Amino acid sequence: MEETGVYEAMSTLRAVRRLRSDPLPDEVLERVLEAATWAPTGGNLQPWRAIVLRDPELKAATGRLYADCWQRYVGGHRAAIDGLGAELKASQERMLAAGDYLAEHWADSPAIVVFCFNPEAMAITDRALDRVSVVGGASVSPAVENLLLACRAEGLGCVLTTLLCEVEEELRALLGFPVPWGVAAAVPLGYPVLGGHGSISRRPVSKMFFSDSWGKAW
Amino acid sequence: MEETGVYEAMSTLRAVRRLRSDPLPDEVLERVLEAATWAPTGGNLQPWRAIVLRDPELKAATGRLYADCWQRYVGGHRAAIDGLGAELKASQERMLAAGDYLAEHWADSPAIVVFCFNPEAMAITDRALDRVSVVGGASVSPAVENLLLACRAEGLGCVLTTLLCEVEEELRALLGFPVPWGVAAAVPLGYPVLGGHGSISRRPVSKMFFSDSWGKAW
Repeated sequence: MEETGVYEAMSTLRAVRRLRSDPLPDEVLERVLEAATWAPTGGNLQPWRAIVLRDPELKAATGRLYADCWQRYVGGHRAAIDGLGAELKASQERMLAAGDYLAEHWADSPAIVVFCFNPEAMAITDRALDRVSVVGGASVSPAVENLLLACRAEGLGCVLTTLLCEVEEELRALLGFPVPWGVAAAVPLGYPVLGGHGSISRRPVSKMFFSDSWGKAW
Repeated sequence: MEETGVYEAMSTLRAVRRLRSDPLPDEVLERVLEAATWAPTGGNLQPWRAIVLRDPELKAATGRLYADCWQRYVGGHRAAIDGLGAELKASQERMLAAGDYLAEHWADSPAIVVFCFNPEAMAITDRALDRVSVVGGASVSPAVENLLLACRAEGLGCVLTTLLCEVEEELRALLGFPVPWGVAAAVPLGYPVLGGHGSISRRPVSKMFFSDSWGKAW
């Protein structure tokens, strides 16, 4: 079997929120987990670990937490998109409908990968700034992206979620990760109910990049 | 030409800190930038933009800032690795030597991609927690990882750096990104001086993943 090309994987990686409950073959799961380990981290310290949830009770308990977070989030978001143009509003509504499905079926995902991180093993260069920090994410989100790309290559649906970070202490009680470890993301995996990965909608290079200075067209 | 496989790219992506000054073909640069645009972001809002530095004066000015940050960082780090075992210490010293090289030759990189982000366009679910936030990074670091993987596919060296975040206001004065935008990462790109990408050293899946609960062997 020919390996999926890297550009092909990146350009067709969608957020797939409708997942079948069929179990995942061990060797497939092993490959997508290994892909995450390859990611760069600051000083190559790999300051993350991840918990793969397959136990039905743990999936159900995290699913209840997720559904609560989703309900809080989606209320505000549905109000926020009311003012958008018709096309953008329709695309946001499709995303919300898929999000509703995920919140209802979270526990049916055959595996959920919860990424934890240790802030004490990170050189967080924006920690002292007068704005929210993002630099710690540079030592864990590349691993998440690798996992997603590997899922794409394997035909597994997946979606990067961060809502559970809001209820980190409840998650800690369920999963047992120690202080000072926190949760950076949770990724449900499974074969897609519908078409899965495919075409994506993104801004072009000319809208995302500037040349030499802010505002100067690429 | 056959496309580089996604697993091959991920498993051979190294931090390449010694870069040749040769200019990059436009079509190569365009492909690696486009790869970044494909990354997932929260709500598909793509709350990042990036500035591609090729102007010699801007590269030199950011290089002076980077060298100052590096000097501050490396002093503490050299002290910290003194207590490590011989093998780990040697690998850290190789990394520091390559870091010295990058700090001295920053401005010679043919292009430096500075990733900016807008925290007001992000749902930062860990903002209220009593720990440093990382969730904003989940909407920009996957784009950085895509850029790195595309560089790997193109034979370009590259390295994810975050030291410049420490001097965000000086960077803002040079590059003109407006408040509330901040800097998440800077990635110098160029063809490698030495071997470039290749074998990497990472912990195995069994050391990075747990099954169902923290500490339970995968």
